[in-house]
Amino acid sequence: MKTKVSSVGTVAAQSARFDTPLALKSGAVLPACELVFETYGTLNAAKSNAILVCHALSGHHHVAGTYADQPKNLGWWDNLIGPGRPLDTGRFFVVGVNNLGGCHGSTGPSSNNPATGKPWGADFPVVTVEDWVQAQARLADHLGIDAWAAVIGGSLGGMQAMQWAIDLPQRIRHALVIAAAPKLTAQNIAFNDVARQAILTDPDFHGGHFYEHQTTPQRGLRLARMLGHITYLSDDQMGEKFGRALRNKEGGLGYGYGVEFEVESYLRSQGDKFAGYFDANTYLLMTKSLDYFDPAHRCGGDLAAALKPALAKFLVISFTTDWRFAPARSREIVNALLKNDQNVSYAEIASDYGHDSFLLEGAHYHAVLSAYLKRVKL
Amino acid sequence: MKTKVSSVGTVAAQSARFDTPLALKSGAVLPACELVFETYGTLNAAKSNAILVCHALSGHHHVAGTYADQPKNLGWWDNLIGPGRPLDTGRFFVVGVNNLGGCHGSTGPSSNNPATGKPWGADFPVVTVEDWVQAQARLADHLGIDAWAAVIGGSLGGMQAMQWAIDLPQRIRHALVIAAAPKLTAQNIAFNDVARQAILTDPDFHGGHFYEHQTTPQRGLRLARMLGHITYLSDDQMGEKFGRALRNKEGGLGYGYGVEFEVESYLRSQGDKFAGYFDANTYLLMTKSLDYFDPAHRCGGDLAAALKPALAKFLVISFTTDWRFAPARSREIVNALLKNDQNVSYAEIASDYGHDSFLLEGAHYHAVLSAYLKRVKL
Repeated sequence: MKTKVSSVGTVAAQSARFDTPLALKSGAVLPACELVFETYGTLNAAKSNAILVCHALSGHHHVAGTYADQPKNLGWWDNLIGPGRPLDTGRFFVVGVNNLGGCHGSTGPSSNNPATGKPWGADFPVVTVEDWVQAQARLADHLGIDAWAAVIGGSLGGMQAMQWAIDLPQRIRHALVIAAAPKLTAQNIAFNDVARQAILTDPDFHGGHFYEHQTTPQRGLRLARMLGHITYLSDDQMGEKFGRALRNKEGGLGYGYGVEFEVESYLRSQGDKFAGYFDANTYLLMTKSLDYFDPAHRCGGDLAAALKPALAKFLVISFTTDWRFAPARSREIVNALLKNDQNVSYAEIASDYGHDSFLLEGAHYHAVLSAYLKRVKL
Repeated sequence: MKTKVSSVGTVAAQSARFDTPLALKSGAVLPACELVFETYGTLNAAKSNAILVCHALSGHHHVAGTYADQPKNLGWWDNLIGPGRPLDTGRFFVVGVNNLGGCHGSTGPSSNNPATGKPWGADFPVVTVEDWVQAQARLADHLGIDAWAAVIGGSLGGMQAMQWAIDLPQRIRHALVIAAAPKLTAQNIAFNDVARQAILTDPDFHGGHFYEHQTTPQRGLRLARMLGHITYLSDDQMGEKFGRALRNKEGGLGYGYGVEFEVESYLRSQGDKFAGYFDANTYLLMTKSLDYFDPAHRCGGDLAAALKPALAKFLVISFTTDWRFAPARSREIVNALLKNDQNVSYAEIASDYGHDSFLLEGAHYHAVLSAYLKRVKL
């Protein structure tokens, strides 16, 4: 009998508190932390069917389904998860988590610093991909999961999957690394730095302690998001979607600085929306963690040497029009794994949608994920 | 005897005032205007050896040589102009001009509005590439030049050369269009809009009337310039120049938001420098004029039809690593000209330096320009 393909339906967030201090890569120690997460499907008796979904820059734990009181609030990767979907909840127990430093419930800059009773703000330590893996491992312990059947993520999420395979090789059987890169280029860092400077120089940032001033650096966050969006889309896709179309189709050129082209309208509204809910300190921290990710660094730049401890099998996926992390960057990962005779499958998916492709439903893309995950033994 | 190749040496800026009202494309009328310019070489008796150099976004009239009281202030295209250089001042009379709306002496937003006695600020009308051509034609009249031997420019400057050929075909014999495009893409416009939003939302912008508040929107202008610089350089060049090198080589990662990677240091210092001298209203205006440039628009998008009136011969040059205006964009111009059986030479120059290549000295690039200009009959 064929499973009816559907969403996971109504879900609820959970929370886990960890009171053992967490030593971070920076040298700072987080006295305690709380992680917010969601689960979909059922953990089997052998606890061998769990998949961890890692989020990217602006993601969170609400990966699939909707909330009873927010029926339109669909998880950000809902198209991938549910009965009959690539991450088939008839077979897998899927876990989404908001990372440390996030702004969706897990301990982060907007949480209270126990030492002061006030929000951490800019005093929240910079966390890295390595730190996230350690924190996620605590969540695995909490759920009684010795080893993930798979860890999956796109972009910064894919970097976490790689880091899991390197740091905790016994605890991950498959690493699904999508639209990622083994490290950022100077250009990638440059874009992040412009975004950070927009936030840091916003007069409403108040050195990261804006919570105490009952304000948020919305101008800076808005610019950061507008800029980010340009790098998430492909040039061709922007051309097809907006071209040079004017917002006011009858009015002609406005010879002023209001919204004029459709692409301006789109970017500004994306920026406004984001600036209304996202935490500026989290944004800074997430971009910094992207900049710092470079597992080959401790091996003198030798990525194969860095990946050598990994026992997981890998699926690496890239998208043809992704210019933020182009297919060539994924092939660096694949080639390093091949150099070690490690088990890796690679798919370069034809897509018009740039970096954002990893979030979208593509027939070939989802077919590759489904086929791969069907072969995963429980 | 071979000419000694050298700079033009010490130069001085001149100024011309035009009291006839100038009707702009927007419908606004500029009651009078002043253009600041420089000349290098000697106008011949037939007045047939004049070359106009058009500047790009942040350029000006000081194209070559130095000033007696500022011996280090070298013109922005000095490497191209002088005895024995591609724009050989032994043969040509070269004219550099600061465009209308500029901030280097020509009438612009920081000039006094005669109607109010105060700086124009945001009330200065948006000027277009077409308007610049009209204003430059007045300068040609002032200098007694009926027809330019050539009009040359890179980027936005190349667009002016194209517009000259279309609007005043009898007055330009050669159009040298370098690192340009027949119109901006949605992505190009998007980058410009983020830059504009950075300026417009800076609290020190004061709706464009910051002069009256004894302040300048330096934060916004700095971000705009940082972002611009990313698009002027190639990804590879940034990688070679900066890679992931840390500014503090011994100190390791800083886990904070200060300058950390070399590329951040470079961008921030470029941004700071620019914000210290450039006018924010001029920046807004120049980016808008880029966005509006689209000569094919009035011909229903048919570029060949738009170029049909041109009588000039064309030299079109692009650079392999330019991703702001990629070679494919230059080929659109070339193909449109070929469709009309118009005279066009095209060179696609191998260069590592992205869009900025047009400003730099490249052996092949300069050889192409020299060879072309040597064939120009006076």
